[in-house]
Amino acid sequence: MIGRRSLLRTSGALAAGLLLQGGGAEAGEDAAPPADSPWSQSLGAGVVDRPYGRPADQEAGVIRRNVPWLTAGTESSVSFSPIQDLHGIITPNGLFFERHHAGRPDVDPAAHRLMIHGLVERPLLLTMKDILRYPSTSRVHFIECPANGGMEWRAAQLNSLQFTHGMISCAEWTGVKLSTLLADVGLKKEAKWVLVEGADGAHMTRSLPLDKCLDDCLVVYAQNGEALRPEQGYPLRLVVPGWEGNVNIKWLRRIKIGDRPWYSREETSKYTDLMPDGKSRGFTWAIDAKSVITFPCPEKPLSGPGLYEIRGLAWTGAGKVKEVHVSVDGGVNWQKAELKEPVLSKALTRFTLPWRWDGRPALLESRVIDETGYVQPTISQLRKVRGISSVYHNNAIQTWQVKADGSVFDVQTA
Amino acid sequence: MIGRRSLLRTSGALAAGLLLQGGGAEAGEDAAPPADSPWSQSLGAGVVDRPYGRPADQEAGVIRRNVPWLTAGTESSVSFSPIQDLHGIITPNGLFFERHHAGRPDVDPAAHRLMIHGLVERPLLLTMKDILRYPSTSRVHFIECPANGGMEWRAAQLNSLQFTHGMISCAEWTGVKLSTLLADVGLKKEAKWVLVEGADGAHMTRSLPLDKCLDDCLVVYAQNGEALRPEQGYPLRLVVPGWEGNVNIKWLRRIKIGDRPWYSREETSKYTDLMPDGKSRGFTWAIDAKSVITFPCPEKPLSGPGLYEIRGLAWTGAGKVKEVHVSVDGGVNWQKAELKEPVLSKALTRFTLPWRWDGRPALLESRVIDETGYVQPTISQLRKVRGISSVYHNNAIQTWQVKADGSVFDVQTA
Repeated sequence: MIGRRSLLRTSGALAAGLLLQGGGAEAGEDAAPPADSPWSQSLGAGVVDRPYGRPADQEAGVIRRNVPWLTAGTESSVSFSPIQDLHGIITPNGLFFERHHAGRPDVDPAAHRLMIHGLVERPLLLTMKDILRYPSTSRVHFIECPANGGMEWRAAQLNSLQFTHGMISCAEWTGVKLSTLLADVGLKKEAKWVLVEGADGAHMTRSLPLDKCLDDCLVVYAQNGEALRPEQGYPLRLVVPGWEGNVNIKWLRRIKIGDRPWYSREETSKYTDLMPDGKSRGFTWAIDAKSVITFPCPEKPLSGPGLYEIRGLAWTGAGKVKEVHVSVDGGVNWQKAELKEPVLSKALTRFTLPWRWDGRPALLESRVIDETGYVQPTISQLRKVRGISSVYHNNAIQTWQVKADGSVFDVQTA
Repeated sequence: MIGRRSLLRTSGALAAGLLLQGGGAEAGEDAAPPADSPWSQSLGAGVVDRPYGRPADQEAGVIRRNVPWLTAGTESSVSFSPIQDLHGIITPNGLFFERHHAGRPDVDPAAHRLMIHGLVERPLLLTMKDILRYPSTSRVHFIECPANGGMEWRAAQLNSLQFTHGMISCAEWTGVKLSTLLADVGLKKEAKWVLVEGADGAHMTRSLPLDKCLDDCLVVYAQNGEALRPEQGYPLRLVVPGWEGNVNIKWLRRIKIGDRPWYSREETSKYTDLMPDGKSRGFTWAIDAKSVITFPCPEKPLSGPGLYEIRGLAWTGAGKVKEVHVSVDGGVNWQKAELKEPVLSKALTRFTLPWRWDGRPALLESRVIDETGYVQPTISQLRKVRGISSVYHNNAIQTWQVKADGSVFDVQTA
């Protein structure tokens, strides 16, 4: 924590600049209020003008974006969240990143069913009404696609925080503990693995070990208070806290219990990591600890020397973020950043550090340590282990180069 | 906490019903997956189809609503949040309740200024760019209009949770601590009160004691991760944690420091409480502890005897919720409900209690106790103190009558 005294030093120093910038001299004790703008001299819109609200027109540039050359079509693609424009740890539902394997289906919640069968005593076929009657649980968790950072790994020249790290978002999820549903169907003693299948055209299918399903998985119908958005699996999805996005099956329609994994297409031909020896790592589910500086970044340059607050996000699939360190000299020296409350397990955690920029080139990096003691690696440390073919699970330290004019560049792609 | 064993009893009992309802018999170990629906046989929409998302078309009924007869026009009115349809503790930005005094202005963030002056050493006139450079803080807090429950107090016949309690919402707010800004301007020793003024046509203005401003007030630019919505004060608002909504000034344009309150229109002719002796209570800022059952409720009846989860919301301006008790017999007997994590200070807290409904009429009530030991009162206890003229700050226990057919009625208005 930055103590109160240092906070005041920080802002006090900042104020001097602002006083000049803002021309505060006009604003003396007896000064009149600011002159009325047009919007202060008229009636605005009524309360029922927008029964369901939307952002201000001036924020029209804050949107999810895709990379056309990255995939054959937009139906099997990804949209990146504009994390350079976001604050706090909650991602608004309209900006939560998307990854589809056969596009966004329009599922009828009245017709949707969840089948639970296989090595169980009492198979079930559940309606949404059935599922909403179960005991409910809410949790704040991030979801990250393991390909987040994949273009970076392949040295694509995008120079954009949105495209290097935008395949992560975080929301408050509400639903039923998967363990509750599995208790209802009654597991047979041979039960060891769980197949989860989506109702999309890809029938997106993954195998999960039973232990994880009984630990903290949720069958979710609500996101940040309201019903799931269609692109997030409406009316029902699986949330597998801390594990790669593609196992968080959307439009969840089937859960089958078995005694071995199914080796589906999505866990054999895809979502495996090709190692230097030619073998592939499979079932690399967990998201390792990762962090990134969100201000400054390529989309948010500095406007001249002076005091700034470096801001960033950290997360780990292993539980809670313990510490984040920030370097302004490319990793030679590190300072401990402030972690913002609340620090929740398997959720985004916000960090900040005050920084006086002297106008000289700088290399900004952040490094997270999670509660297991795991330290976020450099990309060269990762390459030593993984070679260059493995595209998933790039959790390397990100370096932003600040140039003398305040512009910011992704030097891992330079 | 409901222990694991009781949770399994709960869901186990529930499952028996579901097995029949769902016709699980078809879904044996070797059963085929459910027959493909049309959306499972085709490509869905691409990821850039909605750069900024929106809810599913099937959720079109989940919207903010107003009560036309309640106010002269929609520009000086309120929209109620559909809390009967919400989950968890975060209110999505599109459904956050609104209260305007001169409608929703369309403020240009590039032209907007915040003036801080009065009994200060260094008055400031800040741009949004200036404000975004200050050290940032995020907090999850509710905002409630003190008129929430006012129609109930006046015995209006609405029979609706949305209209009895929908003037409350909760979000993650990000901005600058007001104490940081006040440290920058430098308070003179006579400083005791703070005037806060909005840029809307009403120039909404309130006086706040300096101590509260230095304690936990925030000058906020973001809500649930993104820029404030226009109806929530875009580009800048005040958040006064735990205090009545109208002091959380939207479209904040001016902060003046003084040595006494200003007695503005909104704290004299309005937002005061007329007592039985003809005198008015003024400056009744704090929101006292309050709770309400959100399921079942008039909009969400029961579908026949069986096991249900009673769900509700609790909050207090005094800090954290300590306990919530639920009664199914009109307050004769009380059971302790489960509080859902996280329990945050001056934020909505979700509670639940499993309940087997035997199909006979019932009277459901919830009662919150906050960390100060304050117990939510009955409406008769409140009327003894306040008489009938005072319309604000009705935090009385709400009673829902469940009839034999499962329908639910607001018996305080019956």
